[in-house]
Amino acid sequence: MTVADPGQAGCPLPRTETERVLLGHGSGGQLMAELIDGVIVSELGCAGPLEDAAVVDVNGTDLVFSTDSFVVTPRFFPGGDIGALAVHGTVNDLAMRGARPLALSLAYVLEEGLPLTELRAVTASVAAAAAACGVRVVTGDTKVVDRGAADGMYITTTGIGVRLPGATPSAIRGTPGDVVLVSGPIGAHGTAVLCARGDLGFEAEIRSDTQPLHDLVTVLVDVCGPGLHALRDPTRGGLASALNELATASRIGIEIEESAVPVPTLVASACELLGLDPLHVANEGCLVALVAADAADAALTAMRSVPAGAAARRIGHVTEGPSGRVTTRTPIGATRILDMLVGEQLPRIC
Amino acid sequence: MTVADPGQAGCPLPRTETERVLLGHGSGGQLMAELIDGVIVSELGCAGPLEDAAVVDVNGTDLVFSTDSFVVTPRFFPGGDIGALAVHGTVNDLAMRGARPLALSLAYVLEEGLPLTELRAVTASVAAAAAACGVRVVTGDTKVVDRGAADGMYITTTGIGVRLPGATPSAIRGTPGDVVLVSGPIGAHGTAVLCARGDLGFEAEIRSDTQPLHDLVTVLVDVCGPGLHALRDPTRGGLASALNELATASRIGIEIEESAVPVPTLVASACELLGLDPLHVANEGCLVALVAADAADAALTAMRSVPAGAAARRIGHVTEGPSGRVTTRTPIGATRILDMLVGEQLPRIC
Repeated sequence: MTVADPGQAGCPLPRTETERVLLGHGSGGQLMAELIDGVIVSELGCAGPLEDAAVVDVNGTDLVFSTDSFVVTPRFFPGGDIGALAVHGTVNDLAMRGARPLALSLAYVLEEGLPLTELRAVTASVAAAAAACGVRVVTGDTKVVDRGAADGMYITTTGIGVRLPGATPSAIRGTPGDVVLVSGPIGAHGTAVLCARGDLGFEAEIRSDTQPLHDLVTVLVDVCGPGLHALRDPTRGGLASALNELATASRIGIEIEESAVPVPTLVASACELLGLDPLHVANEGCLVALVAADAADAALTAMRSVPAGAAARRIGHVTEGPSGRVTTRTPIGATRILDMLVGEQLPRIC
Repeated sequence: MTVADPGQAGCPLPRTETERVLLGHGSGGQLMAELIDGVIVSELGCAGPLEDAAVVDVNGTDLVFSTDSFVVTPRFFPGGDIGALAVHGTVNDLAMRGARPLALSLAYVLEEGLPLTELRAVTASVAAAAAACGVRVVTGDTKVVDRGAADGMYITTTGIGVRLPGATPSAIRGTPGDVVLVSGPIGAHGTAVLCARGDLGFEAEIRSDTQPLHDLVTVLVDVCGPGLHALRDPTRGGLASALNELATASRIGIEIEESAVPVPTLVASACELLGLDPLHVANEGCLVALVAADAADAALTAMRSVPAGAAARRIGHVTEGPSGRVTTRTPIGATRILDMLVGEQLPRIC
């Protein structure tokens, strides 16, 4: 155990170097980055920027490979369920490296006592989501743990995909002058799941945005080619964390117009009631793209031609620096630093 | 709910069509096969024999793809831990389709409160096991669930690999006349884990056999080529279940000599005390191979040239049928049917 860093005294979560896993370590924000860098990546001895998926050379083909576990609670929520989410999440991580999905694997950890009707419903949802993405589940695994050793079910999906010709998006390719685009409204997934938990004292008609993004990426690659520099789907930790990760990996600054970020009114109201910043809330059906300035208009038009990108918008641009710094310009012209999520806002959101 | 099938009245576990997940659904035996066939595979709409890994065509390359979750308790046991097991299990599933591993993914579900020292130790073990197999962890994911929502940590590893030239082992390729070989002693992993739980009232110096098998498969492919018909690593459900799966998938009979199956004395004694059949106990470092008769002697010699196959033995042969039937010949010359594991013998063994 070490003492708290006095420089961090103002943090919402005590930033002592804890000896145990905290919920905040799963947030998608800064604590998670510390756990991954300080424990997992350091023990594995690997290095390099954190990407949504890895690229592996298979006899000259760029194979993209990504895995995600899903522990969302509740398992069924407006707009989706854990099964669809598991497929979309993995298909989207492949898409963020410019790949279309080739095959999926599906691993279940089931708790003794889980109703088979529920397992059937989730599996049917996996099947429907995969079919809609034109991909098949080709291999899997099922483990059962005793009562009390899991919360119903956890799913791990892993995907492989092949890069589209000319697609080279990477978290390290953001470049000063790039335009920052988002493909759709922000904040719906996390807010929908939180509302579905039913312990808020109010109800809201907010649906998760969970959806696959590979068609959207295909049109972006078509019109931008190598001018499509970086893609990220702002899941855990929200848009703010995704922008910070890109800024850090590419050693760039990012400046966004706060009023340009599309936050639906219902989401904004729910977040205000809950004391959440919509920019820190998870999304499961939109992406942020850093695109060369001369390709930006065509990219926006192309995104809007696909249902998943109908509400695409330009929200900002990439600056020389300071490296890793994301700032927002508020409607009254002031500038503030937009940090990654610190601590835990919404546990078990995906 | 339906009533029990009276024809199954003698089963160790009531074989009613339950509406909930049972521990036995994770056994690797018959209940698991029913869950996978009746719920998961039927909802996914896929078909075909259950293989340890899928083969996916990637621009003309046979890519092998496999996933496994690991929920073993305790996480550290004589001879290994959950991290090494996760690497070996996935490397071995790739090897059972004739592939050497190319890359691994690693997904953690961590329980809030898990000591970071333990996460570090498991991750270091993953790294060491992967390095020993010549493979890298290239992508991963970390989720955290609240206290009481998991039992410390679960790991899902997924692997991709490329088939060795000329390697075509498949669960459906067993052929009458084939020789049945096992690569080493049977029953150590499950017995070691059970003893490590410390609630048996006795201790035994049994170590898990967990180890990678890809080098062993490489020499088998070298000497047998297409004569290497089928491979399976007898994990959950043990040797008996693996043989039954091969017999069913290939529509063959398998006859083994009970006295030829290498069961270490300590394992045999522990199993006798515990009322277990060593042929139903999980292994994590051996394989069973169905090999064309004219390649069998060379295969055995080759296996014994590799440390993981030093104790390889011939234990039986493949017959025309009855299809799906596995029989053992006892030392006194009697014959008995060797069934798959029914129900649950050892929960959370891998």
